[in-house]
Amino acid sequence: MFRQEVSETSVSTKGRGFYEITREVESFVSKTGIKTGLATVHIQHTSASLLVQENADPEVRRDFERFFQRLVPDGDRIFEHTAEGDDDMPAHIRTALTTVNLSIPVVRGELALGTWQGIYVWEHRKHPHTRRVTIHLLGE
Amino acid sequence: MFRQEVSETSVSTKGRGFYEITREVESFVSKTGIKTGLATVHIQHTSASLLVQENADPEVRRDFERFFQRLVPDGDRIFEHTAEGDDDMPAHIRTALTTVNLSIPVVRGELALGTWQGIYVWEHRKHPHTRRVTIHLLGE
Amino acid sequence: MFRQEVSETSVSTKGRGFYEITREVESFVSKTGIKTGLATVHIQHTSASLLVQENADPEVRRDFERFFQRLVPDGDRIFEHTAEGDDDMPAHIRTALTTVNLSIPVVRGELALGTWQGIYVWEHRKHPHTRRVTIHLLGE
Repeated sequence: MFRQEVSETSVSTKGRGFYEITREVESFVSKTGIKTGLATVHIQHTSASLLVQENADPEVRRDFERFFQRLVPDGDRIFEHTAEGDDDMPAHIRTALTTVNLSIPVVRGELALGTWQGIYVWEHRKHPHTRRVTIHLLGE
Repeated sequence: MFRQEVSETSVSTKGRGFYEITREVESFVSKTGIKTGLATVHIQHTSASLLVQENADPEVRRDFERFFQRLVPDGDRIFEHTAEGDDDMPAHIRTALTTVNLSIPVVRGELALGTWQGIYVWEHRKHPHTRRVTIHLLGE
Repeated sequence: MFRQEVSETSVSTKGRGFYEITREVESFVSKTGIKTGLATVHIQHTSASLLVQENADPEVRRDFERFFQRLVPDGDRIFEHTAEGDDDMPAHIRTALTTVNLSIPVVRGELALGTWQGIYVWEHRKHPHTRRVTIHLLGE
C-alpha cells in the first residue's frame, strides 16, 4: 500500500561548515518501514545548501571549503547586496552552485546511497543558524 | 487517494535574466487540492535553468548575474562551439552549474519553500526565448 | 494502478568524459509501461556526476571539459587531500558543481526531456571506473 511520510526537522549550525544528516535521514526511512520508494530532502534556505559527498576523510571537506572560498570570495567588490554581511552574497551563490534538494531512491528499506556518499547540510554563513529541512518519503 | 497531475507550461523570456514562477507553481498545487505530496519542476532546455533563490531584494539577482558573467564570460576564447553566438556555451555551462529540475515536498497543501525562497527560470541567452517547463505533482 | 520499478545498473567508463545514458533510461521507462509518473536517476558516487546537456554537437562536451579543467585544475596546490591522485579532489568538486540526482517527469509514456536534452554520466576521474546508477520510476 502506497503511503507518504513527512519529517520537518532542523539543523543547528555553528557557522560555516558541514553538518552530516545521513543518519537522521536513514533513521527516518527505517522508522517508516517503507521498503521501496523515493526520499526527497529539501532545505528551506537560500544561504545554506545540501551536498552529497565523501564521508570518509575530513580533508575532503576542508578542501571543499577552501576551494569555494577562493571561487566565491567573501567581501568581493563585485557585490552590491552587502547589507547583511560580506558573507551573504557568497552564501547565496554557493547555495546556487550546489543544491537545495535531493531525491534519493529507497531500495530494500535503505537509501540507495553509494558506500562513500554522505548527506550534508553545508552552512555558508559565518554565524550560527537554525536550518529547516523537510524530508518527504513516498513508497510502500 | 493517490493521484498525479501534470502541467505543461511555458515562460516567455526577454533575454538574460530571472523570471519568477513561484506563484504559478503554487497556484497549480493549490488547484489540484493535493495536501501532501511531491512537486517536481523540470525545464526542457540546455541554456536556461531553474534557481531557488531570495525573492526579496532584486540586488541579489543583479549580483548573481554579475558573478556568473565573470565566472563564465561570454566570448571566452576557450570555447570551440561558437556558431550559435558568444553567449551559447556560457549559457550551457551556467545551466549545468545550477539545475534543470527541482523536487519540492508539498505539506499542508503548500510547497515546503522557506520564507525567502522563490523559484526562478534563469534565462542565460541574450535573446528572448520561449522556455517549456513541466510540473509534475504526485500526492493525495 | 500506481506502481514502482527500480533498475540498478552500471556504466563502465574509460576515464574522464561523457557517457550518454538517455536511451537506457528511456528504454527502462518504456518497458515498464508506465504512462504518467516520475523517473529519478541517482549516481552512487562522489567523483562522477550526472549532467543533462545538449546531445547534438560533440563540441559542446569538449568545451565543458575544457572549462571545468580550467575552473577546477588537477593538481591545484590548494588541495590537501591528494593521496588518491591529483584528479581526486577536482573530481569531488566537479561532482558537487553539477549533480548526483535528477528527477524527470514521465508524460505520455516518455521522459519529459527537451529536444536537445540528453542525460550523461560525467566521469571526472582519469582512470576507468564502474559507476553504479539507480533508476527509480513511480507512476501508472
